[in-house]
Amino acid sequence: MTVALCPGSFDPPTNGHIDVIRRCLGIFDELVIAIVRNPSKTPLFDAAERVAMIESLFKDDPVEVDSFEGLLVEFAQQKRVDVIVKGLRAVSDFEYELQMAQMNETLSGISTLFVPTTPENGFLSSSLVKEVARFGGPVDTMVPALVAEALAKRFSDDR
Amino acid sequence: MTVALCPGSFDPPTNGHIDVIRRCLGIFDELVIAIVRNPSKTPLFDAAERVAMIESLFKDDPVEVDSFEGLLVEFAQQKRVDVIVKGLRAVSDFEYELQMAQMNETLSGISTLFVPTTPENGFLSSSLVKEVARFGGPVDTMVPALVAEALAKRFSDDR
Amino acid sequence: MTVALCPGSFDPPTNGHIDVIRRCLGIFDELVIAIVRNPSKTPLFDAAERVAMIESLFKDDPVEVDSFEGLLVEFAQQKRVDVIVKGLRAVSDFEYELQMAQMNETLSGISTLFVPTTPENGFLSSSLVKEVARFGGPVDTMVPALVAEALAKRFSDDR
Amino acid sequence: MTVALCPGSFDPPTNGHIDVIRRCLGIFDELVIAIVRNPSKTPLFDAAERVAMIESLFKDDPVEVDSFEGLLVEFAQQKRVDVIVKGLRAVSDFEYELQMAQMNETLSGISTLFVPTTPENGFLSSSLVKEVARFGGPVDTMVPALVAEALAKRFSDDR
Amino acid sequence: MTVALCPGSFDPPTNGHIDVIRRCLGIFDELVIAIVRNPSKTPLFDAAERVAMIESLFKDDPVEVDSFEGLLVEFAQQKRVDVIVKGLRAVSDFEYELQMAQMNETLSGISTLFVPTTPENGFLSSSLVKEVARFGGPVDTMVPALVAEALAKRFSDDR
Amino acid sequence: MTVALCPGSFDPPTNGHIDVIRRCLGIFDELVIAIVRNPSKTPLFDAAERVAMIESLFKDDPVEVDSFEGLLVEFAQQKRVDVIVKGLRAVSDFEYELQMAQMNETLSGISTLFVPTTPENGFLSSSLVKEVARFGGPVDTMVPALVAEALAKRFSDDR
Repeated sequence: MTVALCPGSFDPPTNGHIDVIRRCLGIFDELVIAIVRNPSKTPLFDAAERVAMIESLFKDDPVEVDSFEGLLVEFAQQKRVDVIVKGLRAVSDFEYELQMAQMNETLSGISTLFVPTTPENGFLSSSLVKEVARFGGPVDTMVPALVAEALAKRFSDDR
Repeated sequence: MTVALCPGSFDPPTNGHIDVIRRCLGIFDELVIAIVRNPSKTPLFDAAERVAMIESLFKDDPVEVDSFEGLLVEFAQQKRVDVIVKGLRAVSDFEYELQMAQMNETLSGISTLFVPTTPENGFLSSSLVKEVARFGGPVDTMVPALVAEALAKRFSDDR
Repeated sequence: MTVALCPGSFDPPTNGHIDVIRRCLGIFDELVIAIVRNPSKTPLFDAAERVAMIESLFKDDPVEVDSFEGLLVEFAQQKRVDVIVKGLRAVSDFEYELQMAQMNETLSGISTLFVPTTPENGFLSSSLVKEVARFGGPVDTMVPALVAEALAKRFSDDR
Repeated sequence: MTVALCPGSFDPPTNGHIDVIRRCLGIFDELVIAIVRNPSKTPLFDAAERVAMIESLFKDDPVEVDSFEGLLVEFAQQKRVDVIVKGLRAVSDFEYELQMAQMNETLSGISTLFVPTTPENGFLSSSLVKEVARFGGPVDTMVPALVAEALAKRFSDDR
Repeated sequence: MTVALCPGSFDPPTNGHIDVIRRCLGIFDELVIAIVRNPSKTPLFDAAERVAMIESLFKDDPVEVDSFEGLLVEFAQQKRVDVIVKGLRAVSDFEYELQMAQMNETLSGISTLFVPTTPENGFLSSSLVKEVARFGGPVDTMVPALVAEALAKRFSDDR
Repeated sequence: MTVALCPGSFDPPTNGHIDVIRRCLGIFDELVIAIVRNPSKTPLFDAAERVAMIESLFKDDPVEVDSFEGLLVEFAQQKRVDVIVKGLRAVSDFEYELQMAQMNETLSGISTLFVPTTPENGFLSSSLVKEVARFGGPVDTMVPALVAEALAKRFSDDR
């Protein structure tokens, strides 16, 4: 049985993230989705909100959602995962992720596999989606409905 | 149970290939290694020799080795694999492999995962190794012993 | 009035090419499509066949289709175009095309603009499509219907 | 008639920007230059100063200069432009700009064309120029004379 | 006699830096190591600490260690060096460094040479090492012993 | 005293090559220029012609010009050079050259340094220059006068 860990900020989850997770569910037996808590950044959605969004999106799948702070490899070892999986969109993603993968393998012996996003989602990023939503642009083809609603609510609260 | 397909020319297998396959064996339940027969190229080792080399290197592992000609996705469907895995060394590898992965997913619905090589093997390629061996350079830190012997024999036959 | 030149091998035209040409038609007043005749390569479709395919696909648009051999900039000067446009899929395309653009501007003073392909077509290339069609794989989502028929006919003739 | 929109921070405009705008003037009938106002950043020159600089540099050309805050595509739709044009220096520019282009086309249907900079200006960026000027280095081969004077004045005010 | 300047933040020096410096010592007659003081950033180790670390690591070599603020090329001219050398790990490093090299050559006529890191150190960066050390991860295979101790001390002071 | 080896095909030498060699002459004490003889390719100019061209271009400099077949590192060891230097134009050059540099260092312990070309020459390559000259295009701003004459003569002989 293969358990894979899928880490990320997911602030918020986009259709690109959903697509990578769906693909991993078709390949691995179980999936742990690990939301990074970075104390030096102020996220749009706090870790509990992000956990709740992803749990709601994958409530019928063999998915555990959790958040962590600190070293990814320590979290991976606690969860006893077999492998780390990361979505890849572009060449610039690739270089940074390769560097992280080599660091993580050196620290823990756990390998990282890369999952390319589908081309239609290749241009999506959480930060671009937030920028569009902040100015009232339409994001409903870029994120799941519950995320689009949460974005609309968050930015209307801001005004 | 997850069965992964690992395609390549393997002409000949290098320590980079071995390292990618070893890592896949730690992640997936079974591995099918698929040697590409390309009728428009003349390999240094014919398909049967390459199958025999890899079978010998992984004789104690849950590995099936076979060769194919034609579309990779048809071979993948015949073998009923769950996923295709490809080693990645560099950015230029990544772009071509991403294009192939998207084509293969469009044709068959089978995803491709990418496995980064360890940094020590990142500069190895079958064609570089052949060029070194052709001129009598030392390749024993770059390929398994049985491949080094086969290279030495092949090029001494040539002279 | 702006006339743009869109050069390429188009052996055969794919949905990626069609998409780039359609976009150029929405931007420029007239388009000259220039099919490169490269005497050192054997194309699958000869220049006349490729001209006929593209003329048929754009018969209702302000498009002139022609083929040429030799320097692109000389052909561009004969046709009195204002600008050269090239589709771009990936980073590796970009570097080569940038080098060609700088050479062509040095030789003729004519600028090159780059048109990114839509993400859905980013993985398409004439050579990949030919490889799939050669082995009888389905290409009807990758090329226009008349190209799919021409490919099927060409490869069935081969057998 | 083709109207193109050329967006950017232009803080300050460099010879690289000037070169891209000059080239666009040779291709398109009219040009709208759109200066991005980003409320979360403190520019060296405020939007009005940047508008004045560019207006002064192109006072004899069919160029409209304006600034905007918010979504580029909304500004593009207000100005009824046919196409967005962006200068491209390097591979890393290309990936980010491609992502933005795909997002903007999804939101508005407006295509983005890329204009490569001439090689001599490929290393110039507003931030590098500011860094050189801040320490009193010579920038007169990198920016127009009026920008060089504005930089000298701004940094002497700072001391 | 060739004197080379090797600039960087070195906050802290990693095995990747050490490896690049060792290689330069095998090629050039003398080496000036220039630690950048950037007043807009708060380093983990101040300039004096970084100078002391590198002096200690290369106390038996023809190495001068100094820090500077301002333009690298002015410092290079003061030190009368013949060439600037920079370590290169990845493609993304390369593009930025190429831009800097061209700017520096334009400003001073001094060329920059690039030294590739050994593959084993290609994934190391000062910021990744600090992140691992901050969370108590093992960094002794990534930095010299005296740096590992300084990191442990610095982060235990923080707690 | 530092002796550097500068290998390449130089078929023919372009202004990009000349620029890299001139820069190396400003940095290193002596330069060995090594022309690769590749028996599986048919060059436009044979090795003796290329040696003569480069000798003529650098007849007043501390430059030794020679050709070799086989492994570069063996030739480097025979010539007792301290370092290999390679010109770099683009990201795609960089990845291939990095792979070669790591292979060569593994085989011989000799490091490779990279010299970036000046931006004006970044688009030049021997193969592009030959293509332009073959069709009678002007190459006199791209190669030294003696190379332009040799190209004109060679291609007029062909007709």
